[in-house]
Amino acid sequence: MRRTIDWDAGAVVIVDQCALPATYRTLRLTGVDELIDAIRRLAVRGAPALGAAGALGVALAAFRHGGDHAAVRADAERLAAARPTAVNLRWGVRRALARLDGGADAVLAEARSMLAEDERVNRAASQHAAGLVLHRCPRRPLRVLTHCNTGRLAAVGWGTALGTVWHLHADGHVEYVLADETRPLLQGARLTAWELAEAGVPYRLLPDSAAASAIARGLVDVVLVGADRVAANGDVANKVGTYGLALAAARHGIPFVVVAPESTVDKELATGEAIVIEERGADELTHIGDRRVAPDGAAVFNPAFDVTPVELITAVVTEHGVFAEAR
Amino acid sequence: MRRTIDWDAGAVVIVDQCALPATYRTLRLTGVDELIDAIRRLAVRGAPALGAAGALGVALAAFRHGGDHAAVRADAERLAAARPTAVNLRWGVRRALARLDGGADAVLAEARSMLAEDERVNRAASQHAAGLVLHRCPRRPLRVLTHCNTGRLAAVGWGTALGTVWHLHADGHVEYVLADETRPLLQGARLTAWELAEAGVPYRLLPDSAAASAIARGLVDVVLVGADRVAANGDVANKVGTYGLALAAARHGIPFVVVAPESTVDKELATGEAIVIEERGADELTHIGDRRVAPDGAAVFNPAFDVTPVELITAVVTEHGVFAEAR
Repeated sequence: MRRTIDWDAGAVVIVDQCALPATYRTLRLTGVDELIDAIRRLAVRGAPALGAAGALGVALAAFRHGGDHAAVRADAERLAAARPTAVNLRWGVRRALARLDGGADAVLAEARSMLAEDERVNRAASQHAAGLVLHRCPRRPLRVLTHCNTGRLAAVGWGTALGTVWHLHADGHVEYVLADETRPLLQGARLTAWELAEAGVPYRLLPDSAAASAIARGLVDVVLVGADRVAANGDVANKVGTYGLALAAARHGIPFVVVAPESTVDKELATGEAIVIEERGADELTHIGDRRVAPDGAAVFNPAFDVTPVELITAVVTEHGVFAEAR
Repeated sequence: MRRTIDWDAGAVVIVDQCALPATYRTLRLTGVDELIDAIRRLAVRGAPALGAAGALGVALAAFRHGGDHAAVRADAERLAAARPTAVNLRWGVRRALARLDGGADAVLAEARSMLAEDERVNRAASQHAAGLVLHRCPRRPLRVLTHCNTGRLAAVGWGTALGTVWHLHADGHVEYVLADETRPLLQGARLTAWELAEAGVPYRLLPDSAAASAIARGLVDVVLVGADRVAANGDVANKVGTYGLALAAARHGIPFVVVAPESTVDKELATGEAIVIEERGADELTHIGDRRVAPDGAAVFNPAFDVTPVELITAVVTEHGVFAEAR
């Protein structure tokens, strides 16, 4: 399967991201609760993929409950709330739900068109971003630093920030990618490194805390990241650690570019200050696999995201081009 | 054993920091090669503890080789080179070696006096730092953020930055400590959390990448860190991630205080630019315990330290008071 998430014979099929990089396998999810569980434990994650998951989940519910629209809406509400920060999940749910009066088939058709659209939109956004990077960064080939996973594993079939790397690499412009490992769930080590290896792009993995010194040591020409929610003014909520990268990039005069589909923009939100930041469980920090790495009873501060103010961002790029820019 | 490193009946005895937090156990090292291995795999680590290890290692060599001073000096040279960035290791070796003409007993006496001195000096440095923090931070009680481990496990019997927390806590001034987990080897999660729990100081563990947003969200009054090497101008080499913390602290106007014994200052080094940064192995990032978390063949960028320029540092505090200050 080349798609990270798809519909197949009455089920939502996802690439199980908890199993990578050791195993590439798919999971068939036939109920909304199964899908919510997969979303919560990040077996499917990434803002664009969550939009698709929201829409396909409503299709699952519509087939399950037939004409009982109240039951479908209740499932849809639970689904939309599975993760609080990613605006795409709620957006995908709402868009599919709007077709409920046409029946389950109409809901599914909408969800399927959203899957195709996601790939198209991310290709366009990342193409815009690649052009902007080539314009802003004189050095060739380019040395890119990225955070978390923003490749096809975060979307349906084509990534955002990592999609930008694919465009640049296709034209021979990439020397290497520095990929933050992205604690606590290691999406960079497990997923981004896997995609970079698969694509044959030279890369090095680094601890998140080494990114600022890599920038200070002149090893980076541009920082490329995705987004989980963009406020109307261009403030960006993204995987925790993004804000620190933006501080380092600004200090050293390196472009800091955010690549995201327009569906990530929450126009009802004036600035990033009001964005609800999901707090995740203690186990993500106190255990690695089954192994305990912190004392019993350790309390944690484990926000999944942080907010980068637009004044630290060179540009937020969507399929329509530059949405917001500051420095 | 309350000391992290000590001499006992012909052996160097260390608290095995690779076994914490699961197991508190000591290792008896009777040869220089064993000690070098323990230093390389960070069973003993921390700038002050490495100074003690260097001196005690020379004593081991002196007893082993008797009057063969050339053999002792060869062992001492290998020992001093076991880790390239920490200046204290080389300092400890040199100081003990200077007593070689007096015989092995004289070398051991010098090493033992250095152990006692280490505790005295770190108590004094951290007492100075506590006073400075109380002067610079009006809020009570204080919310401290720290990185890596700078407690007694990093020294002989009393820590530096964490020693400062003990002084502040004894006077009831600490609300909580946010302890960076400190990838890749998790000294914060494994060691600092263990010391904080033992001391009864409320703490929360966080991913290193969440520290900047904790500061941005107003959850931190002061950042306290140790140092592995301080240049003559006050630039500081410390555990990788320190530089990013300094950037965030400066951005949000929070004091950033470095606590270290004077032996950490390398007066022959004009600035931090010339500091050799140790690069550590790929396994630290590609594996956690026996578990592979990155694709086969993943290359890494894994510097153990970074350099924070003095202009981002509120003060470098030693046993003699403020050594350097900028903002």
